[in-house]
Amino acid sequence: MTLPKIDGKRLWSAHMAMAEVGRIPGEGVCRLAASDMDKAGRDLFAQWCEEAGLVVRVDKIGNMFARRTGRDETLAPVLIGSHLDSQPTGGRFDGAFGVLSGLEIIRTLNDAGIETDAPIEIVNWTNEEGCRFQPSSLGAEVAAGHITLEAGLAAEDEHAITLGAALDQIGYRGPAGIGLKARAYLEGHIEQGPVLEENGEDVGIVQGSMGINAYNVTLLGVEAHTGTTPVTRRKDALYAAARCITEVRALAEEFEPDGRATVARIVVEPNVRSVVASKVTFTTDCRHRSPEKLDEMSRRLKQIVERVSEECGLEHTMAPYWTVPPRNFDPECIDALETAAAGLGLKHRRMVSGAGHDAIPISAVVPTAMVFVPSKDGVSHHVSEYTAPEHLEAGCNVLFQAAVKLAGLRATKLDGTDVTASIEV
Amino acid sequence: MTLPKIDGKRLWSAHMAMAEVGRIPGEGVCRLAASDMDKAGRDLFAQWCEEAGLVVRVDKIGNMFARRTGRDETLAPVLIGSHLDSQPTGGRFDGAFGVLSGLEIIRTLNDAGIETDAPIEIVNWTNEEGCRFQPSSLGAEVAAGHITLEAGLAAEDEHAITLGAALDQIGYRGPAGIGLKARAYLEGHIEQGPVLEENGEDVGIVQGSMGINAYNVTLLGVEAHTGTTPVTRRKDALYAAARCITEVRALAEEFEPDGRATVARIVVEPNVRSVVASKVTFTTDCRHRSPEKLDEMSRRLKQIVERVSEECGLEHTMAPYWTVPPRNFDPECIDALETAAAGLGLKHRRMVSGAGHDAIPISAVVPTAMVFVPSKDGVSHHVSEYTAPEHLEAGCNVLFQAAVKLAGLRATKLDGTDVTASIEV
Repeated sequence: MTLPKIDGKRLWSAHMAMAEVGRIPGEGVCRLAASDMDKAGRDLFAQWCEEAGLVVRVDKIGNMFARRTGRDETLAPVLIGSHLDSQPTGGRFDGAFGVLSGLEIIRTLNDAGIETDAPIEIVNWTNEEGCRFQPSSLGAEVAAGHITLEAGLAAEDEHAITLGAALDQIGYRGPAGIGLKARAYLEGHIEQGPVLEENGEDVGIVQGSMGINAYNVTLLGVEAHTGTTPVTRRKDALYAAARCITEVRALAEEFEPDGRATVARIVVEPNVRSVVASKVTFTTDCRHRSPEKLDEMSRRLKQIVERVSEECGLEHTMAPYWTVPPRNFDPECIDALETAAAGLGLKHRRMVSGAGHDAIPISAVVPTAMVFVPSKDGVSHHVSEYTAPEHLEAGCNVLFQAAVKLAGLRATKLDGTDVTASIEV
Repeated sequence: MTLPKIDGKRLWSAHMAMAEVGRIPGEGVCRLAASDMDKAGRDLFAQWCEEAGLVVRVDKIGNMFARRTGRDETLAPVLIGSHLDSQPTGGRFDGAFGVLSGLEIIRTLNDAGIETDAPIEIVNWTNEEGCRFQPSSLGAEVAAGHITLEAGLAAEDEHAITLGAALDQIGYRGPAGIGLKARAYLEGHIEQGPVLEENGEDVGIVQGSMGINAYNVTLLGVEAHTGTTPVTRRKDALYAAARCITEVRALAEEFEPDGRATVARIVVEPNVRSVVASKVTFTTDCRHRSPEKLDEMSRRLKQIVERVSEECGLEHTMAPYWTVPPRNFDPECIDALETAAAGLGLKHRRMVSGAGHDAIPISAVVPTAMVFVPSKDGVSHHVSEYTAPEHLEAGCNVLFQAAVKLAGLRATKLDGTDVTASIEV
C-alpha cells in the first residue's frame, strides 16, 4: 500500500467555493486583509476546518491555526498554509492554494484514517498581500518576531484604520499568544512567473528566496522649452532616467537567472509635452539569491546612476527603500518535497522565489520550504490568474507526502490496526 | 543726424510698471487671458496709448490695435506687437516686451516729432499663451483667418467659460471687424532659449519658425511580477519606452541645430514598484525648419518606435497630436531688422523660432519678422524669467529702425520743416 492521493476534484471545488467569496468580474476576487470579504473567507475556512474535526485558534494578530491532533501532542506541529487575503483585483489561487491544500491534506488523512505523530496545523496568515496594510506578510512577520505585535496592530490603511481596529471589526483579533514552535512549515503557492509553464513542468521545489535591495532614485535637471533649447544644452531628467532604465535592463540580463533588476515606476515633473523634464523619480528593485551578488548588483546600479547623472549634468539622490536579505529554506524540508515530487513522477525543478511569501519570514524561525505550481502566462495579482486543476492536485500531493513524512506517520486502519510499516512514503 | 534711439530707461520702467499688474511672488506675473488681471494689463496699456495720442480699437476676438496716424492714411499700417497675457506663473518679459517695445517706439517718434508715411499700430493679441484657452495664439490665429471667429469665441477654459463670455466679462469683446491689412508685422520677444546668452549676443534675427510634428505614442506590454519574471521573458513597456527616449535623443542630436526632438511627458501603468509596466504613453515632439527634414525626422521616429516595439514584443500605436508647418518670415522684414542690428553695432545672429509666437500665424497673411532678445539661463514661463535692460533696449532699437524703414519715414521738425533727407536709417 502506498500513501493515498489527495482528491484533486475536491481541492478544485474548495478553490471554486472560496472564489465565490469576494468574487469580482473576470473571475477574480477582492478580499482585502481584515475586510468584510476577508472575514467571509475566514469564516468559510473555519467552518470547513471544524467540519474536518480541527480546532481553530486565532492569535492576537489574526493569524488562524486549525489543528489536527497528533499521536503525541507534546511534539511541535507541522504547519501547512499560506493566506486567504487578496489584492483588490486579485485572482483565485494566490494564497488560497496554500491554505486549501492544507485543508485537502487533512481531509485526505481523515478519510484514510491516518494519524500522524506530530500534530498538523493549517495556517492562514494575516495580511500577506500588503496592499491594505504595510508591510506585506505582516501576520507572518509578527509571528516570526520580526515586527512587534504592537507595531503590527498599529499598521494603518489609507483611511487611517489600524489593523487592530479592522480585526476587531471582523472579530478576528484573537486571544492566542504570538510565537511559533513548529517542526516544519510547508507552503504551496502559485509561481507568479512563467518558468514552470514554459518548461512544461508540474511543480517547483523552492530552495529559498531572493534578497531585495530597492531604492528610490531622483534625478534633478532643469526645465526648458522643447522648441527653443538645443538638446545638447538641456539637463533633461527624463532622458537621463531613460538611459538608467536601459542600463538597469542590461544589468538584469547579466545576472539572470538568479537575479532580477527592474525599474517599474517613474514620476516625471512637470510632465508636460513642451517642457523638458526637470525632475524624475524612479524605483529600482534588485533581487538575487546570493548576498554577495545582490551587493554587487546594488553597487553596479549606483555606478549607473552616478555616471549617467554626471554625463547629463544632473544632480541625483538614491535613497534605500527596502532591504530584504536572501533566505535559504531548510534542507530537510526541501528534501522531503523533492523526494515526494520525484516519487510521484512529477516533472519538477529547483527554483528560487523572487516574490515575497509568508514562508520567507517564517523560514527564519521554523524549518521551511515551498512548492510552486505553474501560473498560466506567469500572471498573478490579476483576475485572469489561473492554475490548472491537475497542477493544484500535483502540488497538493507533494505537500501531502512531505507533510506526512515530516510529521511522522503512524497509519492505523479505522479498526485500530497499525499499518504504518506497509505504507511507503 | 541719425534716427534717434529709443529710451531704454523708459522702456524698462514700462516693463516694471506692467509687471505690477498680476504680480506674484518671485517677481513673476499671472495675467491669464481674459481674466481680471489681463483686463488690468489691457487697461494700463490702453491708458498709455491714449496718453501717447493713439486711437485704440478692439476687435471681436479682443485683439487691441493702437494706431498712430501716418502721413498717408490710405497706406496699410506697420504693426508692432505681441501679447500681454501670461502663464499662470509666468515672467515679466514674455509677450510684454513686444507690446511695450511698440509703445516705446511710438513715444520716441512722438518725442522726435517724426511722422511716418504709413500708420503704425501697436498690437496686443488675445490669448497667446494657450494655457487658459486652446489653442495658443488664438487671437492671432483668428486674425489670420486660420480659425473662425465663432470657433475662437467658443473656446472654453477648464471651467467651461468661453473666451467670448470671458471677454464680455472684462469688456474687451470689441466692435472692430476681423481681418488684417498691414504693410508688415514686427514682433520682439524673449528668446526662451539659451543660445544668445551663451554666445554673448545682443539680438537674434528670426528667419522663420520650425514646423512641429507631435505624436502620442502608446506601447502595450504585459504586467508581470518583478521578482518572479525573468527580464528576458517580460514585455516591459517602460523598458521599451526608455529605449525609444534614448534613441529620440540621438535623433535630435543628429538634426541639431535646426531641428529638435523631445520626449517630455510619460504616463506609466500600473506604475507600481513591483509590477512590470504594461502600458506606457509618451509624447514626442519633432521640430525642424525644413519641411523635408521634418518629414524625415517623423519617419525616423516611427521607425524607432516600430523597431523597439517589435524587439520588445510589444504592440504600439502612434497618433498624430499636432502638426504645424514651418514658416519662412518675409525677406524684406528680415533684411530691415538685420540691417538695423548691423547699423547699431549689435552682436546678432540669424535664428529660427522653435517656440510658438503670434508672428507665426500672422506671417501667413502679413509680411512678418521677429527679433529675439536674450533670456537669462534660457528660462521662460517661470517667475525667474529675466532679460537685462540693455538687451530690451537693443531689441527695441532694432524694431524701431526697421519699423520706421518699413513705414516710410517722413521726418519733420516740430516747426514743420521736412528733415527726412538728413536722417540715416
